[in-house]
Amino acid sequence: DGREGTSASQDRTALYSVPPKMKSYIVEAVSSFLFEYETPRQVLVRNRRVGIACRLIQLGVLGYIIGWVFIYEKGYQNEDTAIYSVFTKMKGVAYTQISGVEKVWDMSDYVFPDQGGDSFVVMTNFIITFGQTQSKCPEVKFIVNSIQAFCHISTLRSSPILHQTSQWVQDTVPLPDGKNNCNSDADCETGQIKRTGNGHMTGNCVNTTHTCEIVTWCPVEDDRQIPNPPCLLAAENFTLFIKNSITFPEFKVDRSNLVESVDASYIKRCLYHPATDPLCPIFKLGDIVRLSGFNFTEVARVGGSIGVLIDWECDLDYSIQNCKPKYKFHGLYGSGTTGQASVGYNFRKANYYVEDKVQKRTLMKVFGLRIEVIVHGLARKFDIIPTLTAIGSGVGIFGV
Amino acid sequence: DGREGTSASQDRTALYSVPPKMKSYIVEAVSSFLFEYETPRQVLVRNRRVGIACRLIQLGVLGYIIGWVFIYEKGYQNEDTAIYSVFTKMKGVAYTQISGVEKVWDMSDYVFPDQGGDSFVVMTNFIITFGQTQSKCPEVKFIVNSIQAFCHISTLRSSPILHQTSQWVQDTVPLPDGKNNCNSDADCETGQIKRTGNGHMTGNCVNTTHTCEIVTWCPVEDDRQIPNPPCLLAAENFTLFIKNSITFPEFKVDRSNLVESVDASYIKRCLYHPATDPLCPIFKLGDIVRLSGFNFTEVARVGGSIGVLIDWECDLDYSIQNCKPKYKFHGLYGSGTTGQASVGYNFRKANYYVEDKVQKRTLMKVFGLRIEVIVHGLARKFDIIPTLTAIGSGVGIFGV
Amino acid sequence: DGREGTSASQDRTALYSVPPKMKSYIVEAVSSFLFEYETPRQVLVRNRRVGIACRLIQLGVLGYIIGWVFIYEKGYQNEDTAIYSVFTKMKGVAYTQISGVEKVWDMSDYVFPDQGGDSFVVMTNFIITFGQTQSKCPEVKFIVNSIQAFCHISTLRSSPILHQTSQWVQDTVPLPDGKNNCNSDADCETGQIKRTGNGHMTGNCVNTTHTCEIVTWCPVEDDRQIPNPPCLLAAENFTLFIKNSITFPEFKVDRSNLVESVDASYIKRCLYHPATDPLCPIFKLGDIVRLSGFNFTEVARVGGSIGVLIDWECDLDYSIQNCKPKYKFHGLYGSGTTGQASVGYNFRKANYYVEDKVQKRTLMKVFGLRIEVIVHGLARKFDIIPTLTAIGSGVGIFGV
Repeated sequence: DGREGTSASQDRTALYSVPPKMKSYIVEAVSSFLFEYETPRQVLVRNRRVGIACRLIQLGVLGYIIGWVFIYEKGYQNEDTAIYSVFTKMKGVAYTQISGVEKVWDMSDYVFPDQGGDSFVVMTNFIITFGQTQSKCPEVKFIVNSIQAFCHISTLRSSPILHQTSQWVQDTVPLPDGKNNCNSDADCETGQIKRTGNGHMTGNCVNTTHTCEIVTWCPVEDDRQIPNPPCLLAAENFTLFIKNSITFPEFKVDRSNLVESVDASYIKRCLYHPATDPLCPIFKLGDIVRLSGFNFTEVARVGGSIGVLIDWECDLDYSIQNCKPKYKFHGLYGSGTTGQASVGYNFRKANYYVEDKVQKRTLMKVFGLRIEVIVHGLARKFDIIPTLTAIGSGVGIFGV
Repeated sequence: DGREGTSASQDRTALYSVPPKMKSYIVEAVSSFLFEYETPRQVLVRNRRVGIACRLIQLGVLGYIIGWVFIYEKGYQNEDTAIYSVFTKMKGVAYTQISGVEKVWDMSDYVFPDQGGDSFVVMTNFIITFGQTQSKCPEVKFIVNSIQAFCHISTLRSSPILHQTSQWVQDTVPLPDGKNNCNSDADCETGQIKRTGNGHMTGNCVNTTHTCEIVTWCPVEDDRQIPNPPCLLAAENFTLFIKNSITFPEFKVDRSNLVESVDASYIKRCLYHPATDPLCPIFKLGDIVRLSGFNFTEVARVGGSIGVLIDWECDLDYSIQNCKPKYKFHGLYGSGTTGQASVGYNFRKANYYVEDKVQKRTLMKVFGLRIEVIVHGLARKFDIIPTLTAIGSGVGIFGV
Repeated sequence: DGREGTSASQDRTALYSVPPKMKSYIVEAVSSFLFEYETPRQVLVRNRRVGIACRLIQLGVLGYIIGWVFIYEKGYQNEDTAIYSVFTKMKGVAYTQISGVEKVWDMSDYVFPDQGGDSFVVMTNFIITFGQTQSKCPEVKFIVNSIQAFCHISTLRSSPILHQTSQWVQDTVPLPDGKNNCNSDADCETGQIKRTGNGHMTGNCVNTTHTCEIVTWCPVEDDRQIPNPPCLLAAENFTLFIKNSITFPEFKVDRSNLVESVDASYIKRCLYHPATDPLCPIFKLGDIVRLSGFNFTEVARVGGSIGVLIDWECDLDYSIQNCKPKYKFHGLYGSGTTGQASVGYNFRKANYYVEDKVQKRTLMKVFGLRIEVIVHGLARKFDIIPTLTAIGSGVGIFGV
């Protein structure tokens, strides 16, 4: 457009040489608005260097528009983010034989919370204190020793109260760094709670333990040593089943991670493997930990957190069957090798019950793997509006 | 601008005809930079077709800028996404009379977890196994039969241990697809755990059931039949109250889904209806299921998942009272009609207690509706910067 | 480019004066495509006003590109949003001495749920109903009185069943607004459940209370009065430890809110303060409530919800040590001063146990602070592609 031609010049000359008549002034103005247009006079330059440079720049811009805007950024497609739902279920049974007591741990025992949502904890290690009651007992001393701690569960049937108490009763040497230590009753201020303490001080210093007596849930939990090896090392073989439904509301597309090739018979025998079974929704816990770059035994001992990413990137211009999830594993924190101020992951859980009219609780310090299933869903589909916008902005850049 | 005029031509001629004096060279350069500007020579073309086409294109661009950028995309406004908080509370009481035992189920019994967050499960069906202890018992056989399962709860007062055990003891025919079946002790490898098994095999094959004896929580849960009709079909009439606060931090606007028209007296009597009561924050569970396209009885039996979307799209250039939520309902997965490999939603929950010095648990396989409240919040308000940017980019496209 | 020069004009004249030979026609076309280019004829206009205006506009556009696109919007950098994990742990012990009974409340007693995730509730007030069983008892009357409610816990050791029942038995005057009131058996329809009722009516009207008898968990919870002052006012001194790991997958950067300056010794003694200790990850609950604009006593009584925002905005072109979190506090709903239809935050939690072969539960109506840790993570880093795009679009606007 706008190449300077003789006809255009003539038109223009004609326009100015003819004087407008008064009565047709408005008609003239409207028609001149409608039928005339301005365009810059173009000069056709012949110069090898500049010409080639000019064409190269145009080629670059064209390449940018086609390559970047259309192919890479998919500017001709509309995007839609997903609404999704995640359902998880652990399977597997751990068997422990501690101090002669057999115990089987199933899903309901080692998964918290129970609901099978997108965030849960698989217990891999624990310190249990059975039969706590509200009463008076001495604090546990802070000690630093090198004795290896083994996973031990008191025989609940015989004497739940005696659990783990004999250990610190015998150790009578007060250590200098023991924060709850005392030498006389004056060290234990009645009614106060120490920052590192577990309860209200009664004002007595217990001679046998050299610690202050407190009102609290007794006996006090003794978590000075984390069992090593972890109590539920068998968790490595537990399996995690993930069911993930995803909906792209704008495109009215529903998908599940149980895609066409994952049928009932395949699910019954498959196990996820990044190379051979990338679509199997059943994962071995040990594999998840390994794929996220952790060492299972270490993480199982102190706890950690792992993100399981389910990545949906669907081009709905192709067949819906190509819309498949990709699983990725990401260590979020954990194994204590980074030298941070705080390592691992643990929490305490109490189960309350009434025995002989007395309110009691079983306190469990749980070390475990916190697994968070994170879903990223993005679908694209051809749409006329983004296509026009992309072409328009491309033409704009081209024009400049 | 830039229409070729005679004065401009004269200026230009003047510029080139006057030779620059040496001492005023810099002044000249600066003033020429400041006071001169280049503009393309325009040609005024008079041509009906091209003229009209040109005006139509300009009209199109103008329409695009005004219609799309300003009216549709609201390019003159700033956006802010919301911080929000969701609080939910179920109400309703279910009454069951099973095997002559009356039982009332209230919110604390049928909602998991208790905290009233944005994701929770309403139990609609269940299989309860009372009084499990760690001991030895035979596996439950996998059987496929067509016997209708009814909701049954053992009479806890009399004999919790006997619950659901008589059923499989009487059935003595070993079925070929029974995965935990055995004919002799050789079939039950001591110390091993079968993939489909619930515990550690002792090495004995129990004659009465033809299944392996295992160490586990006994009696083993018998979940071969899902009760039909669902035990808590009354859940259809439970109501869900949703309180949703939303904050747009950039605009310093706080809103709640209890908008002006939803006052204390309205809340006490209203029930959400898409047409007549679209702002009432109290929803009947049956309505939610129906509006998301599911059949309540079917979903209640095997479980399912539903998303309740609260959509806030607020134009804060208007009165704040127009900033109201819209409720949408979306079935995320479920009712088993899609023929997928895995249908429904269930999880197991254990309640631990101590009886006669023995640790016991009540295991509940819960089928239910998982409800996830999803909040989308977007507010817009006039702001000078996006307006200028939108005008600028509009002018840019117009110029081209 | 495109200033009209004599050489270009000559080239052009040459091009048109030489007639193309037939055999070299294609070569000519290709070379004319490659070596020629069109450019508008420019006119150099000398006009003070227009010139200055023109330069000012160009200056404005340049300022916009540099100031807005590059400095403010950081158009030369790539963005990445974060994957994160939040771990929380409350510390602190509350001591209550109610009706002569000493009780110590630790983390396991007052935090729901236990797992230490990003959303949890700290109990600050409660109404406990011990030892509920499935049986028949009269409804609690709705009364409006001005009697101050004090925090009271029944002495569980002696008589859990008697708790809180004596209170309403003595009050025998039926009030007109009592929704569950009755004067004769005819007011209590057998088998029905009132909307405000807690169970299945038996058809009897209990004379002593003038309310209908129902089948439900008995005794019925009496929550007509919220204890004031709150039972666990000591919660103000509880501390919250937040551990937040963040990962920018695209830039392969991992950070934790325990930054370099937050080492093990600092954590042991520090407490968050917006001015003096802005990086300490240990927060006093009272401070959180105060910083979010609430009054602790009021929120502790009826409950409320607070968002703790952790804001990561990292410019990775600088040292990684400058990538630090900022903590912000935001009241999401709550303290009842807004005059809304529904205030506060509470939920009910039941602990189930078996006593004397009877299934019982302890029901706790929990008022508390719901804390939601929200993480916003955004990292930026220089990248060639957004830089070129920004320059390109800048040049585009400049050209116009």
